[in-house]
Amino acid sequence: MRTVALAIDLGGTKVEAALVAADGTIKAGSRHRTPTGPTASRSQLDEAIIHVTRGALEAVGADELLGCGIGSAGPLRREDDSIWPINLPALHGLRITELISPAMAGRPIMLRLDGTCIALAEHWLGGTRGASNAMSMVVSTGVGGGIILDGRPLRGDTGNAGHIGQIQVHTHRPGRSNAAASLEGIASGPRSVRWARKRGWHGCTGEDLARDYAVGDPVAVAAIRRSATAVGEAIASVATLLDLHRVTIGGGFSRSATDYVDIVQTAAVGASVVGYARDVVVTPSALGADGPLIGAAALVHRSDVLVPA
Amino acid sequence: MRTVALAIDLGGTKVEAALVAADGTIKAGSRHRTPTGPTASRSQLDEAIIHVTRGALEAVGADELLGCGIGSAGPLRREDDSIWPINLPALHGLRITELISPAMAGRPIMLRLDGTCIALAEHWLGGTRGASNAMSMVVSTGVGGGIILDGRPLRGDTGNAGHIGQIQVHTHRPGRSNAAASLEGIASGPRSVRWARKRGWHGCTGEDLARDYAVGDPVAVAAIRRSATAVGEAIASVATLLDLHRVTIGGGFSRSATDYVDIVQTAAVGASVVGYARDVVVTPSALGADGPLIGAAALVHRSDVLVPA
Repeated sequence: MRTVALAIDLGGTKVEAALVAADGTIKAGSRHRTPTGPTASRSQLDEAIIHVTRGALEAVGADELLGCGIGSAGPLRREDDSIWPINLPALHGLRITELISPAMAGRPIMLRLDGTCIALAEHWLGGTRGASNAMSMVVSTGVGGGIILDGRPLRGDTGNAGHIGQIQVHTHRPGRSNAAASLEGIASGPRSVRWARKRGWHGCTGEDLARDYAVGDPVAVAAIRRSATAVGEAIASVATLLDLHRVTIGGGFSRSATDYVDIVQTAAVGASVVGYARDVVVTPSALGADGPLIGAAALVHRSDVLVPA
Repeated sequence: MRTVALAIDLGGTKVEAALVAADGTIKAGSRHRTPTGPTASRSQLDEAIIHVTRGALEAVGADELLGCGIGSAGPLRREDDSIWPINLPALHGLRITELISPAMAGRPIMLRLDGTCIALAEHWLGGTRGASNAMSMVVSTGVGGGIILDGRPLRGDTGNAGHIGQIQVHTHRPGRSNAAASLEGIASGPRSVRWARKRGWHGCTGEDLARDYAVGDPVAVAAIRRSATAVGEAIASVATLLDLHRVTIGGGFSRSATDYVDIVQTAAVGASVVGYARDVVVTPSALGADGPLIGAAALVHRSDVLVPA
């Protein structure tokens, strides 16, 4: 019986594949991971994707496999299912579904943004279950997300809806980049590290910031609070514009402080202009590192909630 | 044959009603308008709404009337169809559909935000026809809007989706109101007037600003450019988050300069971080002052595009 989905998560630092059952369980022993990275060549990356795909498929019988769901770093191009991931320039223009196609022997292959997959996963089995309208975010090296509206993942004209990291939360200043006013430009791990270093802090990574936050280093505390506050302000804007009230946050930098999500919640309520947006509830991701694969599998197992192409 | 909709547009300065045919034409002689305003009492406002409703209905036979669509200033409360318009405090909690009900003799009555109605009207017969995803905005005493996604108007958890005037475009500053960082707090007509007056300009109204812009007064020029630029920046965020590419702008202040919409367009493209958002196209509203009534009528004539309740 065909009950198993092949799930692939393609990101800037790694590509991962696994088999996922119809209840969202990742099949033990099926998970394979290979590093990617901005300097990898096209053939190395193709090979990495095929390698994890084959590895995962070894654990499934041909009569069990239902289809394949792929979550990819963006942007995508919906019209031809090509991917243009910012941090994997060698892959620009790749039609990843064609790369996977031989391994799938005619079974359906679905592609969506990684942020969309995370939103689908949280809506299926995680922190936004039961919500008609919701957003799920990742705060890490970058800041991304996906949106559920009326129970369905929002896709957008070109397949890129959910890029909350690129919305504006600070005043644009002439001579500075657009990114400097964007959520990701303020709140990501690397940007928070940079901000702290400019103010005399001597660490190098988000992990260093987390360690120094825990012991009360004032610059580390200010840097992480600044990140979480900006995330909260962006959530206030989204809750206002879309009238949604359930948000989850995952990603490594969102765990840099035990009260990171609490600061986000407070900032989201505090930054809202309209009353209905102040009812937004922000919670940590319920699925953590499994979210992207579960969400990619949801493209197969929950294809009923996908908006018709 | 039942082919005519009663359309009602309830706003902070006036309430208007008219009959609208199935092709979106406003029936000649059916349009009635009465002032509202923040100081009007509950009974005065109830009377005003009933007065324009009765006036419009005089022009229709009972066998022609299909139903009633109402666009109201927000916020609304979707769960009980009550309205809480910011500028009409006497009406807070009014179930406007119950007020209209006796005049409609059992026919359906639909209520949505005024911004939603404008988005519906532009999508039906105006500047966003044919777009799967689009936004329509009003820049006037306030700044508002409505959103079409996958061909349907976005409603939101409480009925308030589309409040683009309350999203953040400037840096929040401690000790200043949230509104000061919001699009409406920067770009509305009254705020632009206030900004110019603080810089030595001596006019009083948006119309004064428009007149002085036309003759090149530097402060008036800067004030209107500042408004249009902020609107463009907000559009960049929405185009990024929702991956939509068609936007219309109406409202009196958007006509304060002949190149207002051009400045918005340039700012929207210039403020985008991601490539797909730079393809956004901003045009003036194609329906102008008829938009709110046509959109209210669309709640009846185009009920097929409304998301199931």
